[in-house]
Amino acid sequence: MNKNIFAPLPPMGWNSYDYYDTTVSEIEIKAAAKCMAEHLLPYGWDTIVIDIEWYSYDTGLKRPKYQYIPFGHVEMDQYGRLLPCPDKFPSSTNGRGFTILAEYIHSLGLKFGIHIMRGIPRKAALEHYPIWNGTQTLDEVADPASICQWNPDMYGVRPSEKDAQTYYDSIFALYAEWGVDFVKCDDICRMDMPSAKEEIRMLHVAIERCGRPIVLSLSPGPALIEEAWWYEKHANMWRITDDLWDNWELLYAMFERCEVWQNHVRPGCYPDCDMLPFGKLGKGFGQEWSCKLTYEEQKTMMTLWCIFRSPLMLGGDITQLDEQTMTLLTNKDILSMLSEGNGAQQYER
Amino acid sequence: MNKNIFAPLPPMGWNSYDYYDTTVSEIEIKAAAKCMAEHLLPYGWDTIVIDIEWYSYDTGLKRPKYQYIPFGHVEMDQYGRLLPCPDKFPSSTNGRGFTILAEYIHSLGLKFGIHIMRGIPRKAALEHYPIWNGTQTLDEVADPASICQWNPDMYGVRPSEKDAQTYYDSIFALYAEWGVDFVKCDDICRMDMPSAKEEIRMLHVAIERCGRPIVLSLSPGPALIEEAWWYEKHANMWRITDDLWDNWELLYAMFERCEVWQNHVRPGCYPDCDMLPFGKLGKGFGQEWSCKLTYEEQKTMMTLWCIFRSPLMLGGDITQLDEQTMTLLTNKDILSMLSEGNGAQQYER
Amino acid sequence: MNKNIFAPLPPMGWNSYDYYDTTVSEIEIKAAAKCMAEHLLPYGWDTIVIDIEWYSYDTGLKRPKYQYIPFGHVEMDQYGRLLPCPDKFPSSTNGRGFTILAEYIHSLGLKFGIHIMRGIPRKAALEHYPIWNGTQTLDEVADPASICQWNPDMYGVRPSEKDAQTYYDSIFALYAEWGVDFVKCDDICRMDMPSAKEEIRMLHVAIERCGRPIVLSLSPGPALIEEAWWYEKHANMWRITDDLWDNWELLYAMFERCEVWQNHVRPGCYPDCDMLPFGKLGKGFGQEWSCKLTYEEQKTMMTLWCIFRSPLMLGGDITQLDEQTMTLLTNKDILSMLSEGNGAQQYER
Amino acid sequence: MNKNIFAPLPPMGWNSYDYYDTTVSEIEIKAAAKCMAEHLLPYGWDTIVIDIEWYSYDTGLKRPKYQYIPFGHVEMDQYGRLLPCPDKFPSSTNGRGFTILAEYIHSLGLKFGIHIMRGIPRKAALEHYPIWNGTQTLDEVADPASICQWNPDMYGVRPSEKDAQTYYDSIFALYAEWGVDFVKCDDICRMDMPSAKEEIRMLHVAIERCGRPIVLSLSPGPALIEEAWWYEKHANMWRITDDLWDNWELLYAMFERCEVWQNHVRPGCYPDCDMLPFGKLGKGFGQEWSCKLTYEEQKTMMTLWCIFRSPLMLGGDITQLDEQTMTLLTNKDILSMLSEGNGAQQYER
Repeated sequence: MNKNIFAPLPPMGWNSYDYYDTTVSEIEIKAAAKCMAEHLLPYGWDTIVIDIEWYSYDTGLKRPKYQYIPFGHVEMDQYGRLLPCPDKFPSSTNGRGFTILAEYIHSLGLKFGIHIMRGIPRKAALEHYPIWNGTQTLDEVADPASICQWNPDMYGVRPSEKDAQTYYDSIFALYAEWGVDFVKCDDICRMDMPSAKEEIRMLHVAIERCGRPIVLSLSPGPALIEEAWWYEKHANMWRITDDLWDNWELLYAMFERCEVWQNHVRPGCYPDCDMLPFGKLGKGFGQEWSCKLTYEEQKTMMTLWCIFRSPLMLGGDITQLDEQTMTLLTNKDILSMLSEGNGAQQYER
Repeated sequence: MNKNIFAPLPPMGWNSYDYYDTTVSEIEIKAAAKCMAEHLLPYGWDTIVIDIEWYSYDTGLKRPKYQYIPFGHVEMDQYGRLLPCPDKFPSSTNGRGFTILAEYIHSLGLKFGIHIMRGIPRKAALEHYPIWNGTQTLDEVADPASICQWNPDMYGVRPSEKDAQTYYDSIFALYAEWGVDFVKCDDICRMDMPSAKEEIRMLHVAIERCGRPIVLSLSPGPALIEEAWWYEKHANMWRITDDLWDNWELLYAMFERCEVWQNHVRPGCYPDCDMLPFGKLGKGFGQEWSCKLTYEEQKTMMTLWCIFRSPLMLGGDITQLDEQTMTLLTNKDILSMLSEGNGAQQYER
Repeated sequence: MNKNIFAPLPPMGWNSYDYYDTTVSEIEIKAAAKCMAEHLLPYGWDTIVIDIEWYSYDTGLKRPKYQYIPFGHVEMDQYGRLLPCPDKFPSSTNGRGFTILAEYIHSLGLKFGIHIMRGIPRKAALEHYPIWNGTQTLDEVADPASICQWNPDMYGVRPSEKDAQTYYDSIFALYAEWGVDFVKCDDICRMDMPSAKEEIRMLHVAIERCGRPIVLSLSPGPALIEEAWWYEKHANMWRITDDLWDNWELLYAMFERCEVWQNHVRPGCYPDCDMLPFGKLGKGFGQEWSCKLTYEEQKTMMTLWCIFRSPLMLGGDITQLDEQTMTLLTNKDILSMLSEGNGAQQYER
Repeated sequence: MNKNIFAPLPPMGWNSYDYYDTTVSEIEIKAAAKCMAEHLLPYGWDTIVIDIEWYSYDTGLKRPKYQYIPFGHVEMDQYGRLLPCPDKFPSSTNGRGFTILAEYIHSLGLKFGIHIMRGIPRKAALEHYPIWNGTQTLDEVADPASICQWNPDMYGVRPSEKDAQTYYDSIFALYAEWGVDFVKCDDICRMDMPSAKEEIRMLHVAIERCGRPIVLSLSPGPALIEEAWWYEKHANMWRITDDLWDNWELLYAMFERCEVWQNHVRPGCYPDCDMLPFGKLGKGFGQEWSCKLTYEEQKTMMTLWCIFRSPLMLGGDITQLDEQTMTLLTNKDILSMLSEGNGAQQYER
């Protein structure tokens, strides 16, 4: 398998984070998918991504103190593989995981994506769960010092352990079984922890072994330009900034990031400018608001993303898009640069 | 209580680490104490300190891969307070903790010290144990991102939480009940994690509240000279270097550290040059060896420590000291500088 | 000679910088001295210091573009020793330097101080001037890469060269001849350049050799606390912050600096909290203004400086002090802490 | 003018540094040129570059203490433009500069290159020389704090001054008059000083204005990958490492640097792997030696440079090349990759 053919064009889709944060549920995902299939699929938008903590209970209940509740309750199997929280994803009971939901999304002609955190659930390591298809237990493979600075869910993996790859294989075997088409792995792209570089490679190998062409997206940025070759070899897209929101300064700064990465765009390899925060945002964060970028700024954003050939992931609530935004998202002239563009270069700053 | 009167002179004693590492047992501690009482107590040596991981099972079994076994089994009570591992400390069963052992040591005219790691046991946080005398649970007080880089046992405490102090009070209430006279707290002195500074203050407050004059020693170094006032206000001794072993370069470098800290020595406040690695070392690390410093170097070391008025903690096996070392440790002229010295200053380098 | 007896108490005086910047002239210095002798000398204020660029022509003419004019014209002798600019100091002609002015100041019962920059005038190095009493030329001793980041006048000295010390001896021989009692050396205290540490030692040796008890003051801060011993051994006072002005935030931050340095104050050794910017300020900078600290803040400042036993150098125009400020500067209760204080310690923050 | 057409293929030539250091003379340059024309020109080698300090007197006389003599004597005109030292380049007298030498080199069918340091000669700034065709003097344009850390000759230029560009125009007007085809500018590529980035742009503008297609080479590396666009826009080649010598570790490390820069090679834009240190080296440094790379290593080097499409600049003495080396330098299969290669990518590490 050549991972570059999994994504011959920059992926286009919708991601649940900007609107739902950690709280998105099956019914909301299905509504988003239905809306996409009806209105946006003809223009190339075809991927639905469930973002962070679909496996957690009680998400959203300790705001504003915590976005991610420390030592919270999560759903997992006896091998330490996280499963959808059945309170949020009722179809996942009886060991079906995301199978039913993925089938529904596929039935609409769409692709199904999920978000994961780098590593192993903390409880699975502490309780010495076995590794599926392996001989080690997860405490032997988890690194108690390799943690994410902003999310308390996981421990990183020790690349030197025999069953480190086996663990990543085990989760991708499950994702393939579910019918996952796209995985966004977080806490890995900017390599905050030393093992992250090798964990990127292990994700790639796990995808090759799972037999399903799963597009691999790495987060958060900024990606390290001196590691460009590593991203290009192992992933399909990688974030080139920290989280982008509906803010002109962040958008303006993206021009400089595109300057840095412009020579690194090619089929199957996409430096990622992050989600388009258009429309309604933030409900899962506790208060809904409308995108603060002016329409001119949104056009600038859409144009830059397309000229640069960034993946396009809509962040706002797809079911509430107004006509103006819909017009922007379905402008064939702009979108055509995604497929026909090649080696766009900054001319002047 | 004024913490400076707990230690009007630099503490003198023996610490189990250099010889036994994590493996020391009750019988070995008692042998060391007996030896100290007979041979060294008349010269001022009076403190026995049990170093790291007295609460852990299986210590020493995964060498050389791990000094501290990740996600290992530890003994604790229902409030997340670590207890002596009964395999190593048989007298601790039935909830007696170190009471029996402390009584024995006191009966010899000695003081009893223990080592602790900053924070809360990882399992106690993950399983939401209640805090003794508090209203919060330990998951609310533990910080999942505040970890030690070299030991996997604990999570640091969030100083902003109501029961953060209650937790430290809870462990010192236990130590006071056991009869502890000296606590060496690790992963705290050089403030690797942001909360460590406030945790030093909480340790101090917990000692004041426990009603027992427990000497507070902070590790590891190098302590931050710009935080000298904080150490002086809250602790009795603080390490001014990283671990010192039987190595001339490390010893030589200590002269420079003493230069930096010489204006900060006074009764109750002792910058700490670390243990004296004399005699037999390293059995618990897997192979016993004899101190590699020449006798001249050992005299230099002993002299510098005494002129500077550093605490003196013997690290080698106290039961196997040869005559020459014993002569050095009982030299009244050198030792007199500890009690009579005052404001020694470096003259030239 | 023991440099600590040159300044048994913290120096008290007036410095031309805060009011005159680089532009102060002989007539202004004499007026300041006369005023000090009449009004402040009885309270211990006894030192007049001419600050930066008394050797430069054209000072102040390129404001606001330059405080220090690059490649400007300076007065010096054939050995590269800077001399007073005769336009500003008419009595300095005919090779008399500051002799006449010093005599006048001494006649009032006061002490005479000057400011210097670390190193050798750039022109003297470029033109290979000989070193007074030496065998090398200044290009051999000057280091073309050792420059000050904020002033373009000098090159630092290479400590390894035979006549490096000879150069510093040569300038202090001149200062002794002039009757200088106090030297504030700039671009040296925080050791921005590697040679600065050794240059501090060379200044000390030059003072010992010149035969005159010249008080040595080092600038700018923040001094490095880990080099405290070096300052204590070689200098009388050293700045513990960057330039302090009439600003509450800067004043407030000084409490923390005093915390860091409080154990390092003793006769002859004074961590220096910088000038007191009271009264009229800034004329030489282009616009005169009045101290922006409230009177309560000024009292706080004066009290902290005296409790801490910092040197006291008035910065505002001494000839225009109002009654309130004069009352503060002559408060015997506050000032008595300077002479009688000993080891003041911060109690709480 | 489009600078990319000045160098449609990676430049190939010989540079005097590795063999002659600062000491190369006209007669030696002519011998090198003659040798190149006879033996190497048919294979594409066509550029002769005179490296550092052709304007300095007394080069090589203070070894090993100084490679570059501080405050040494240099040849320049009344506008502060450096001229060839007539002791080393006799044909340069009477204001002819490098004209005669360039004519000779051109007559052989070769191109003529020189090395310059970023900025303005220190003496020219100190003595306020006028700028050719400008209204400011050089002291107004030179920045006294913008120096090279390893060479004492120059001050950098202040980009904000009106005649900053005029100064660079003035020197390139001279170089165009001389017939220079290639300029290697040093102390600029890795942007050690803040102004260096703008000075790169000014060099580019000066070349456009001088009317002659001068190839611009930037040194020393490592170039900053995040500034790739800036190099690509303004220069023809830029060093991607610090100085490379005949050492396997340095050569091995180049593979990693090529990985980083592989997406940034295209006509007119060449990341530069530095000189090929083949044959005899080091005479000007005080002792001649033979390249310490094995022949296998030299083949590896030559192959990597050609696959990557790096400029090829021979560093060893071109007149003493042995047959084996000559064979390597004239291998048409390897060299063909320089002209025919396109977008070579690392496959594995």
